[in-house]
Amino acid sequence: MGKRIVIALGGNALGKNLHEQMDAVRTTASAIADLIEDGHEVVIAHGNGPQVGMIQNAFAAYHKQEAKSDIMPLSVCVAMSQGYIGYDLQNFIGEELDRRGLGIHVATVLTQVAVDPKDPAFQHPTKPIGAFMTEQEAKKLAAEKGIDVAEDAGRGWRQVVASPKPVEIVEIETVRALMNSGHAVIAAGGGGIPVVWEDRYHLRGVPAVIDKDFASECMAEQLDADMLIILTAVEKVAINFRKENEQWLSDLTPEQARRYEQEGQFAPGSMLPKVQAAVKFAESKPGRTALITLLEKARDGIAGKTGTSIHM
Amino acid sequence: MGKRIVIALGGNALGKNLHEQMDAVRTTASAIADLIEDGHEVVIAHGNGPQVGMIQNAFAAYHKQEAKSDIMPLSVCVAMSQGYIGYDLQNFIGEELDRRGLGIHVATVLTQVAVDPKDPAFQHPTKPIGAFMTEQEAKKLAAEKGIDVAEDAGRGWRQVVASPKPVEIVEIETVRALMNSGHAVIAAGGGGIPVVWEDRYHLRGVPAVIDKDFASECMAEQLDADMLIILTAVEKVAINFRKENEQWLSDLTPEQARRYEQEGQFAPGSMLPKVQAAVKFAESKPGRTALITLLEKARDGIAGKTGTSIHM
Repeated sequence: MGKRIVIALGGNALGKNLHEQMDAVRTTASAIADLIEDGHEVVIAHGNGPQVGMIQNAFAAYHKQEAKSDIMPLSVCVAMSQGYIGYDLQNFIGEELDRRGLGIHVATVLTQVAVDPKDPAFQHPTKPIGAFMTEQEAKKLAAEKGIDVAEDAGRGWRQVVASPKPVEIVEIETVRALMNSGHAVIAAGGGGIPVVWEDRYHLRGVPAVIDKDFASECMAEQLDADMLIILTAVEKVAINFRKENEQWLSDLTPEQARRYEQEGQFAPGSMLPKVQAAVKFAESKPGRTALITLLEKARDGIAGKTGTSIHM
Repeated sequence: MGKRIVIALGGNALGKNLHEQMDAVRTTASAIADLIEDGHEVVIAHGNGPQVGMIQNAFAAYHKQEAKSDIMPLSVCVAMSQGYIGYDLQNFIGEELDRRGLGIHVATVLTQVAVDPKDPAFQHPTKPIGAFMTEQEAKKLAAEKGIDVAEDAGRGWRQVVASPKPVEIVEIETVRALMNSGHAVIAAGGGGIPVVWEDRYHLRGVPAVIDKDFASECMAEQLDADMLIILTAVEKVAINFRKENEQWLSDLTPEQARRYEQEGQFAPGSMLPKVQAAVKFAESKPGRTALITLLEKARDGIAGKTGTSIHM
């Protein structure tokens, strides 16, 4: 029996530039087609950290060259990144589905995600975007441009922007309509275009990037999905990660996951938001399962053979 | 009785930069909401000449700054422009529909449009994109970058790219599914991401920009629309335009339109492609009408009160 599944694709699934993207997306497409061939309804979200940073940098270089003081709002850069990534992603997935004769169409929906204007994240930018820099380069850029920078999980320095929590997928009825008509849907790309409701009717873009794992979780709840799959670079979640007493986890209740979280077992900006999003989904309704695993293990993970499952 | 209508929005409906876009799109949204309130099914396509040129220039400036020889393919720039424009367009239309309590959702579909790789347009670039330049600036840029430039309808010099004819809207089933579920759909933005079928399964992006009027016509045929509305800067099509014997046209058969075309009545790159697209639609099936008029006259035009109607 097919499940309704929301998949959150991480950076590994996309690559860091257009050339890498085309290679990475080919592999990604094959793994996603497997799930669709198994009869699951699939909605795909993806990150956009490197891509949205690159787009923002491109417009900064352009405005500098033209001696204009314009800035391209981050929300508009996210909108462009959905086109940039969705184009390759829908093509490779669509091609794979066609080769298998599945008769399933793939669509990319330009998606806004509403956040709370009072979200404390706006005061504490934490989400890394764009290219890695040395500490010196980063601090120079921060002083020049008035942007925030921070060290990113031991990998170098990057610009950081606010990462408020998603409240609502604005285009959820569009995603639902396409899912119900037999489409595989790419939505909430890059965590969605970040917007706030100014009044009952008007949406305004805000300078932020929403975490794709939380956006996927929000979308999975709104679609009443059976499963949220958060893809990452490890097959399972571990406690005491990379220590002598490292232990891989197969099956967790939300309470167990929360306890490990409180012990500081999961790295902020890396495994922590994934576990938090997974716990939120698992707790949202009985029967819902969150799975954290590798892209190429997703099929086995759904079958209960590997990955880390979190459910009540 | 509501009609199924495909609307092609011209440059005036969008503005030339982000600030102008937000102003222009507000007016556009109101006029489109009128048609939806009248009970019509509406699918909206739009141009992207200034926007795709700006995006391409931004990446050129970025790659120059980074001393990289990368170029951002024009097809990917079109994909980004669909996000850039669709974001504002869907928001303003959606807001206007919500204020009127119509319960209609608006969706932007990332859309590819297949062209013939043997289209002679690839040998003769004619479609202007990007900013206006002086002749001197244009010729310098052409020599430096190996791009093509040309004079654009008396308004200055611009880069020109190939503009092959659309053969097929790749995501037509997505547009149809959304239309059938009561959405107003924004699709084939910028004429669509230009692609060619390399074999039965694989699509490849090509360096081109498809004319939005022809892409709209192609989409209107595939959706079996009743009406194709091509919006422009004049209320009606004229013969002897801006001459003493100028004559505004209200109702034309395809044959009459074709005769005027052969007389050279319509300016290439301006009214000519609009009339050609309108004629193609009007001839494609009995009962189909193409209307060329101003955005703010669209409602009256549908009612037969103004604009230039072309039908068999």
